[in-house]
Amino acid sequence: MKHLITLSDFQKETVEELIDRAIKQKKGKLRLSVSGKNLILLFFNPSLRTRTSFELAMQQLDGNVVTLNVGGDMWNLEIEDGVVMDGAAQEHIKDAAMVLGRYADAIGIRVFAEGKHWEKDRQDPVIDAFARYAGVPIINMESSLYHPNQALGDIMTIKEQFGSDIGGLPVTITWANHPKPLPMAVANSFLLACSMFGMDIRFVRPEGYDLDNAIMEKAHELAKKSKARIMVTDSIEKGFRGSKVVYAKSWGSIRFYGDKEKESKHRKGLSGWIVDDDKLRLTDNARFMHCLPVRRNVVVSDSVIDSPSSIVYDEAENRLWVQRSVLHHILGGARKQ
Amino acid sequence: MKHLITLSDFQKETVEELIDRAIKQKKGKLRLSVSGKNLILLFFNPSLRTRTSFELAMQQLDGNVVTLNVGGDMWNLEIEDGVVMDGAAQEHIKDAAMVLGRYADAIGIRVFAEGKHWEKDRQDPVIDAFARYAGVPIINMESSLYHPNQALGDIMTIKEQFGSDIGGLPVTITWANHPKPLPMAVANSFLLACSMFGMDIRFVRPEGYDLDNAIMEKAHELAKKSKARIMVTDSIEKGFRGSKVVYAKSWGSIRFYGDKEKESKHRKGLSGWIVDDDKLRLTDNARFMHCLPVRRNVVVSDSVIDSPSSIVYDEAENRLWVQRSVLHHILGGARKQ
Amino acid sequence: MKHLITLSDFQKETVEELIDRAIKQKKGKLRLSVSGKNLILLFFNPSLRTRTSFELAMQQLDGNVVTLNVGGDMWNLEIEDGVVMDGAAQEHIKDAAMVLGRYADAIGIRVFAEGKHWEKDRQDPVIDAFARYAGVPIINMESSLYHPNQALGDIMTIKEQFGSDIGGLPVTITWANHPKPLPMAVANSFLLACSMFGMDIRFVRPEGYDLDNAIMEKAHELAKKSKARIMVTDSIEKGFRGSKVVYAKSWGSIRFYGDKEKESKHRKGLSGWIVDDDKLRLTDNARFMHCLPVRRNVVVSDSVIDSPSSIVYDEAENRLWVQRSVLHHILGGARKQ
Repeated sequence: MKHLITLSDFQKETVEELIDRAIKQKKGKLRLSVSGKNLILLFFNPSLRTRTSFELAMQQLDGNVVTLNVGGDMWNLEIEDGVVMDGAAQEHIKDAAMVLGRYADAIGIRVFAEGKHWEKDRQDPVIDAFARYAGVPIINMESSLYHPNQALGDIMTIKEQFGSDIGGLPVTITWANHPKPLPMAVANSFLLACSMFGMDIRFVRPEGYDLDNAIMEKAHELAKKSKARIMVTDSIEKGFRGSKVVYAKSWGSIRFYGDKEKESKHRKGLSGWIVDDDKLRLTDNARFMHCLPVRRNVVVSDSVIDSPSSIVYDEAENRLWVQRSVLHHILGGARKQ
Repeated sequence: MKHLITLSDFQKETVEELIDRAIKQKKGKLRLSVSGKNLILLFFNPSLRTRTSFELAMQQLDGNVVTLNVGGDMWNLEIEDGVVMDGAAQEHIKDAAMVLGRYADAIGIRVFAEGKHWEKDRQDPVIDAFARYAGVPIINMESSLYHPNQALGDIMTIKEQFGSDIGGLPVTITWANHPKPLPMAVANSFLLACSMFGMDIRFVRPEGYDLDNAIMEKAHELAKKSKARIMVTDSIEKGFRGSKVVYAKSWGSIRFYGDKEKESKHRKGLSGWIVDDDKLRLTDNARFMHCLPVRRNVVVSDSVIDSPSSIVYDEAENRLWVQRSVLHHILGGARKQ
Repeated sequence: MKHLITLSDFQKETVEELIDRAIKQKKGKLRLSVSGKNLILLFFNPSLRTRTSFELAMQQLDGNVVTLNVGGDMWNLEIEDGVVMDGAAQEHIKDAAMVLGRYADAIGIRVFAEGKHWEKDRQDPVIDAFARYAGVPIINMESSLYHPNQALGDIMTIKEQFGSDIGGLPVTITWANHPKPLPMAVANSFLLACSMFGMDIRFVRPEGYDLDNAIMEKAHELAKKSKARIMVTDSIEKGFRGSKVVYAKSWGSIRFYGDKEKESKHRKGLSGWIVDDDKLRLTDNARFMHCLPVRRNVVVSDSVIDSPSSIVYDEAENRLWVQRSVLHHILGGARKQ
């Protein structure tokens, strides 16, 4: 089953191929089709880029696509097994997955972390249930842990800027301030992607904002193969110096997970963690990247995001092109009927 | 006008034909098209299966489809005639129907019972207004009274299991417990379908849970023609003994209609009305059916729904195939333009 | 950039051409296509006709279309420039516009007036931001100021009734009562359209319900070119006498803008501003028009809207046909890729 839950579900060669085909499609040199195939997109959370780019990608590939908002268009789902379902949930996720798997050739799912218990969220229980029960490939459109399509678009964007060979490229991944504790998925997936592609990674975050241990271990494992370097630091000076790319993202602290007040208190001193002209001056004329949506003048200054160094709109556009590659990779081939 | 509001809008021969074509399509032996035709789906209530299967069916048939959520995407509608509309409703249902009828070649409508006054709900006022004013065929996607597409999928599923000739097949329709009083539409439509197809029906419900008199009369009328038998009992022993199919569904009591507290009190003693292994053992190796969504371990035990006897996912999948038949039957032929 | 924000973005010849092509399409004499083109529809407010007719139009033209509900499917947007975004808005409108412009060949936007400060609303800040930043044509699906696609459908409907040459046609635009202060967009755009087409306009409203000065000036400017006459009166007798068309619409008072209580008090005496048989008897057998949704027996009596003089459903249907013209005009030509 060709799930795309995390980027490392694919071999590096496959990832390279997906990005190559995305670049070719963008240049108008490759026309793919998934005619007759059916995709269901299931949103447990709102979306702008992901919803739009997946719906359009599927239409552009001549496929069929249906979008469902859980809790809006449909009811809430029970996740626990064996429960006596006399509460609010009207349907078990197992049944929803089994049924949607009968209608679709693949299912895209967006489901953010609940934000209460990291031990539960890090299991990605919804994605996991769909992967177990749907019987068709699952495409992760951002879960607690991963946002692989974002990472694919990110790498494509870096290749557009620096050419195909990006091994050894000095890349800064920096934590940024934000009024709320956000999910870690984008940071996790971008770190793993950079590790897969052998980059010179500078991971900069203040004390208390480490990523999950399993993610770091996976990153080191990938880095070993690819000869990537991973430096972890809380020094902005060390983290930004000489970088070619600054990738900003905010995320919540695992240490205070589920306790917004304590996290908020800890974060009081961190408003300096904004990407501004001063920080960019430390770099080697770095490109600024962010997955969007972004809080202007909190995560990044207007002066940086509106400057020629900013490639955030290319990054957003490239979501469309990599997803066309992904959909064709997963759905392509003979028609279901 | 080829409305599909209740199954008996069609002759039995037509229903047989629709199911035959659904089976052929599922096997890949028939390819239908409604190219150039336009379907509007109007949801007054949430949906998973119905929304997904109708949207995909229409795309698969190369038609155009638009889905609207009343109260979400659009405003609420006034149903009463002659009202001075200075309250909450911004548009009269008559006008919405007339307008949508200008855009669409058919309109699908999901509108559950309000649950306050049975005398009002049993008029199916929204479906009725659309059928009167829209000027195009109306497809009932579940109203207070009927869920004809579900019944079509149910009969198709039974035919897949027991062959084309299902006259005389012993089928149990059993009321089941539930935390809330649910609509009767699915039970009504399945009972009518079984009556149309000449089955040996065992209708099992506790005291106070009879269906509407008009439905029972219609069932008996159909049964007369088809030589169906209808036994009504409150004895699980009598109702399950020797059956080949157990079809479970919960619904609210007409006696306590609109009075959740009284119904809830009456229902206290009825938690034994769950389809579990003990009950299934009374049958002749019966298949378990349910329209979904289902409350696990309230309506049916995990052990039954997860067993090989359960055909609920086939039943859900078959919604897609019968609806493709229905859409082609209603929309097929020459293009509108 | 071929925006359609207000009708006067187009030359009169273009507007004529768009309507001619709409009429030809309706008669089945013209088949347009925008195959391969991508439209995003962004709704900040609910919709029935606009949503349905745009989605269907795009599908009928073989294009791709995605619909987004701001605040539902996606988050709220910041409109002010230079803000430190630590409040409720998760994304700046500038970024949303830049990104959607990367995915789409055109963007349709519905965004009503906020209803607090007319000086702010009359800037149409959302439409304005998208026009500045998206980099692709913007199609106004109703803003604070304009509803150009409605006006196009209105003129088409009048031409269907009175023939191609509608110069000098006596048309009454009348304010109507309503429980709430509504936006002025429809009245503005219809007045401008009638002025462009040289009609004999009778603009009837009670004291306090003038349209924005800039709109009136633009109407007079267009009238000068087209030889339209614009009479403004608070006399129903003078305003309705001898008219061939009565176009009813309610809107809020600029004088009490943002102060619902004061407006409500002022409006107390105005319940006579309903289009009923008595008023229609003053006209020269006028057709009744309204953009819908309409409050029956508040804005118009059942007897008028349900009479043969009423052409409101043609008017609604014609939205589809003019929008097909508009979409082809804006998106037609060579495929993007």
